[in-house]
Amino acid sequence: MFESAEIGHSIDKDSYEAAVSELRQALLDAQFELKQQARFPLLILINGIEGAGKGETVKLLNEWMDPRLIQVESFVMPTDEELARPAQWRFWRRLPPKGRTGIFFGNWYSQMLHARVDGDIKDARLDQAIDFAERLERMLCDEGALIFKFWFHLSKKQLRQRLKALEKDPQRSWQISSLDWKQSKVYDKYVRYGERVLRRTSHDYAPWYVIEGADPHYRSLSVGRIILEGLQAALKQKDAPRRTPHAAPLVASLDNRALLDSLDLGQRLEKDDYHRQIAQEQARLAQLMRDKRFRRHAVMAVFEGNDAAGKGGAIRRVTAALDPRQYHVVPIAAPTEEERAQPYLWRFWRHVPARRMLTIFDRSWYGRVLVERVEGFCSQADWLRAYSEINEFEEQLADHGIVLVKFWLSIDKQTQMQRFQEREQVAFKRYKITDEDWRNRDKWDQYVDAVGDMVDRTSTEIAPWTLVEANDKRFARVKVLRTLNDALARALDRD
Amino acid sequence: MFESAEIGHSIDKDSYEAAVSELRQALLDAQFELKQQARFPLLILINGIEGAGKGETVKLLNEWMDPRLIQVESFVMPTDEELARPAQWRFWRRLPPKGRTGIFFGNWYSQMLHARVDGDIKDARLDQAIDFAERLERMLCDEGALIFKFWFHLSKKQLRQRLKALEKDPQRSWQISSLDWKQSKVYDKYVRYGERVLRRTSHDYAPWYVIEGADPHYRSLSVGRIILEGLQAALKQKDAPRRTPHAAPLVASLDNRALLDSLDLGQRLEKDDYHRQIAQEQARLAQLMRDKRFRRHAVMAVFEGNDAAGKGGAIRRVTAALDPRQYHVVPIAAPTEEERAQPYLWRFWRHVPARRMLTIFDRSWYGRVLVERVEGFCSQADWLRAYSEINEFEEQLADHGIVLVKFWLSIDKQTQMQRFQEREQVAFKRYKITDEDWRNRDKWDQYVDAVGDMVDRTSTEIAPWTLVEANDKRFARVKVLRTLNDALARALDRD
Repeated sequence: MFESAEIGHSIDKDSYEAAVSELRQALLDAQFELKQQARFPLLILINGIEGAGKGETVKLLNEWMDPRLIQVESFVMPTDEELARPAQWRFWRRLPPKGRTGIFFGNWYSQMLHARVDGDIKDARLDQAIDFAERLERMLCDEGALIFKFWFHLSKKQLRQRLKALEKDPQRSWQISSLDWKQSKVYDKYVRYGERVLRRTSHDYAPWYVIEGADPHYRSLSVGRIILEGLQAALKQKDAPRRTPHAAPLVASLDNRALLDSLDLGQRLEKDDYHRQIAQEQARLAQLMRDKRFRRHAVMAVFEGNDAAGKGGAIRRVTAALDPRQYHVVPIAAPTEEERAQPYLWRFWRHVPARRMLTIFDRSWYGRVLVERVEGFCSQADWLRAYSEINEFEEQLADHGIVLVKFWLSIDKQTQMQRFQEREQVAFKRYKITDEDWRNRDKWDQYVDAVGDMVDRTSTEIAPWTLVEANDKRFARVKVLRTLNDALARALDRD
Repeated sequence: MFESAEIGHSIDKDSYEAAVSELRQALLDAQFELKQQARFPLLILINGIEGAGKGETVKLLNEWMDPRLIQVESFVMPTDEELARPAQWRFWRRLPPKGRTGIFFGNWYSQMLHARVDGDIKDARLDQAIDFAERLERMLCDEGALIFKFWFHLSKKQLRQRLKALEKDPQRSWQISSLDWKQSKVYDKYVRYGERVLRRTSHDYAPWYVIEGADPHYRSLSVGRIILEGLQAALKQKDAPRRTPHAAPLVASLDNRALLDSLDLGQRLEKDDYHRQIAQEQARLAQLMRDKRFRRHAVMAVFEGNDAAGKGGAIRRVTAALDPRQYHVVPIAAPTEEERAQPYLWRFWRHVPARRMLTIFDRSWYGRVLVERVEGFCSQADWLRAYSEINEFEEQLADHGIVLVKFWLSIDKQTQMQRFQEREQVAFKRYKITDEDWRNRDKWDQYVDAVGDMVDRTSTEIAPWTLVEANDKRFARVKVLRTLNDALARALDRD
C-alpha cells in the first residue's frame, strides 16, 4: 500500500519554486471561488508516520492560502466539555461550514491507530472504529463535503534519519509524539494497522492519498496539486459533490518517477546458476505442497505483466514441479456470456481453489484496473470502486487460509520490441503476437500509471504484490518460484 | 422496528382474490420484461421469525411467476465442496444471472442471527458479519442488482399460536428449525439482534421490508406488491439500478391500517386521578435526576406530534418538576444560516447534553422524515438515507449512556379541528394557529404514512418511540412523564 511512497521521490529547488508560485495563485482562486459558491465545505484529514512532514505541510498550506478561510483543528486531549458528551461530539462541533476549509489533525484515524498500536484495543474494536469512520464520511459526503485524506509516509530507514535530525534540533524535538517511534516495532505496527485502515476506508468519493514525506518539495507540491485539482473539479460541478468519485489518476507522480521505474531491470542469472536454482525451487515447491500442514491451505497465484514479459514461461516453470491433479491454470480472456451476466468478480470466485489446491491465474481480476481502465471498457466509477472490492475479496480468501501471491512481470520498452519482432519472425511463435499487442504498446505510459495505482492500492500485508524484473527470463522465473515458496513456507510456519 | 407488523393486518378472501389475479399477470409481465432486458438480476432475501410464512410465501411466488426464471436457494448445511472454500463462495456460486430471479433462504443474515442467538458469536463478531453483508450488497447493487430484503414478523403471541397449530399438523411440524422457538427468550433474542441487523443494513438502495406474517393473504399480497412496484420502477430506468433508492412509501399498508390507527384514542384520565398521578410522577422525576447514578447519564427527550396535540403542555409538565439549571428546552424551527451551512444533523449534535443534564427537543431531527419528506423540502434520497443516519446518531448517544425517549403525540382529525377553532377564538391562544397549520392538516394522510415509516425504521431497543394517545391532554401528560421516568429508572438500574 505504501510502495510508491518509498522510492525516493524528490523535486529540485528550481522546479519547485517555479511550480509553487503558479500553484499558490490557483489555490487562492479556488479557495475564493469555494467561499463565493458556499455550496460545500472542504475537509482535509492529515495522518501518517511521525516526522513525515504533516505539520510542515499544513503550515505551508496556511501560508499559500488565505488562513482566514481555513480552520486547523487538532484533537489532542479532550476538554471537560467534550468528555461529558459522546466521543464524536468534538468532531461535529468543529466541522467546517460550507465555503470553508477544515484541516483535521489527530482525527478519528489517528485515535484508532494510536489505540491499536498501544494495545488499548484489539482488531474487533479497530474494525468498529473503522466502521464508524466510514459511516461518518459517507454521511458527510452525502451532505456534499469534499474530503481529502492524506497519509504522509516514510520508509523505516527514512524515519530513522528523520528522528536523528529531529533530536539534534531542540526547536523541533517536541514534535515526537507519545508513541515511541524509535522502536522499530512501533513503526511496523503503525504501518500494518495503517494499511488495514487505508484498505477499508479508501472509497472513490473519499480516497486516501499516500504521500512520500522525505522530500519537502515533493510532498508539499503533491498535496497542493491534489487539493487544487480535486477542488477545481468539484467547483465546476453543478451540484455539491455528493459522493462524486475523485478524479484519476490517483497518484500523479510529480517527479515523473513511477514505482516501476525503481526496478533494476538489469538483473540477470547465468545459465548454470539458473538451472541449479530453478531445480532447487521446484523441488521445494513440490515438498511444500506435500506438507501435512498444507491441508489447511490453498494457493492462488496471479500473473500479470507487460505483453511478452514471459508470463507463460514462468507459469510453466511453476507447474513443471507439480502433479497435474494439484493445480489448475485459469487463463483469463474476454468474459463468456455466462460471466457477463454476473457481477465482475463472479468469474474469479468460481475458480477459487479448494483446500490443498493451487490455482494459477494467467491474468486476473486486476484486468479491471489495468486493461479495462486504460481501454475505457468500464466507467471510471467502476474501476475506482474495484480497488476496495478486490481488497475485500482477497481478505476473504486470506481469512480462509488461502495463500495469495501476485506477480507483475516487468520489462522495458526495448525488450518488448525485441520480443515482438522475434515473435513475428519465428513461425511457431507467430500466434502469440497480434495487432492488439502493438496497440497496447502505444499506451505504455497509461499502463505505468495504472500499475502504480494498482500496487499502491492493493498491495497489502495479506496479499502483497511482487514486482518481477523480467528483462532476463531466467532471473524472473527463479524469482517467481522463490517468492511463491517463501510465501507458502511462511504460511505453513504460522500455523 | 417491528411495530407496524404487530397490529393484526389482514385482508379478506374476496379482496385478496380480486387483487391476486391482477397482481399475477403484472408480475409475469414484469418477469418477462426482466428476462428480455437482461440488464440486471433480481435478488430476494427471505428472513424473519419462524412460522411467519416465509416458505409459504416463496412457494406462492413460484406459483404466481414463471418458476423457470426463478432459482430458490437455501443455504442449510454446506457441502464438502463449499466447506473447502471461503464461506462466501457458496453465495457467489448461486447468484442469479442478469434477467433472472434468485430467492435466498437461510442467507448471510439467517446465519449470523442464528449464530448470535445460539451464543456461538458475540456482538463484535456479529458486527463484522453485518459489515460483510453491507459490503457484499453494496457491491452487488453497484453492479446493478435489484435487492429486496423481507423480514417476516410475528408478535410473541402470534408465534405461540402458530407453533401450537404447527405441532398439531404432522405434515408441517418439520418446519420448526433447530432453534427452540418455544422458548420465550429465543424469540426475544432473535428480535433484539434482528433489530440490530436491520437497523444497520437498511440502506435506501437495499432496504428491509418488514411484513406481518400472521395473515396469509396480507403477507402474500404485500410481498407481491412490493416486488412488483420495485421491479417495474427498475425496468423503466434507462440504466441498471445501480444503487438506486427504492421507491417510497416504504410501508404501503394494503389493508389501510396504519400503526397510528391501532391506538385507542378514547383513553382518558379524570381530574382527580390526573392531579394525583402527575404530582407523583413529577416527584419521581426530580428524585431520579438527583440519584447519584444519574451522574453517568443524561436524557434527551424528543417531542413530535400532530399540530395542536399538546406538545407544549406536556413539556411544561416535565420541566415543572425540575431545577432550571438541570434542563434545556430546544425548540426546533427553520434552521439558522449557520446551521444551513452544516450537515443536517449538526444542529442537533450541538445541543447534545453533557452528563447529568436533560434536554428536551420540541420537534427534532425527525423533521427530515416528517415535514421535510411530506413538504418536499429535501430530496427522496435525502430522507431515505436519514433513517440510517438517525439510527447511527442515536446509537452513539446511547453508547455514551444518554437515555433517549421519543414521543409522538397523536390526536384524531376531529380533536385537532376543535383545538384549531378554540385557538382562533381565544385571544391569548391566537398566536398558536397559522395558515401553515391548516395546510398541514390537508396532508394528514401523508403524515400518517410518514409517521408509520418513521416508527418502523427508527424505533429501536436503544431508542424506542412511544406513541401517546393525546385526545385527552391529562392522559397524555401522565403517560409522557411516566414513560420518561420508567426509561430513566431502567437505565439507572442497569448500571
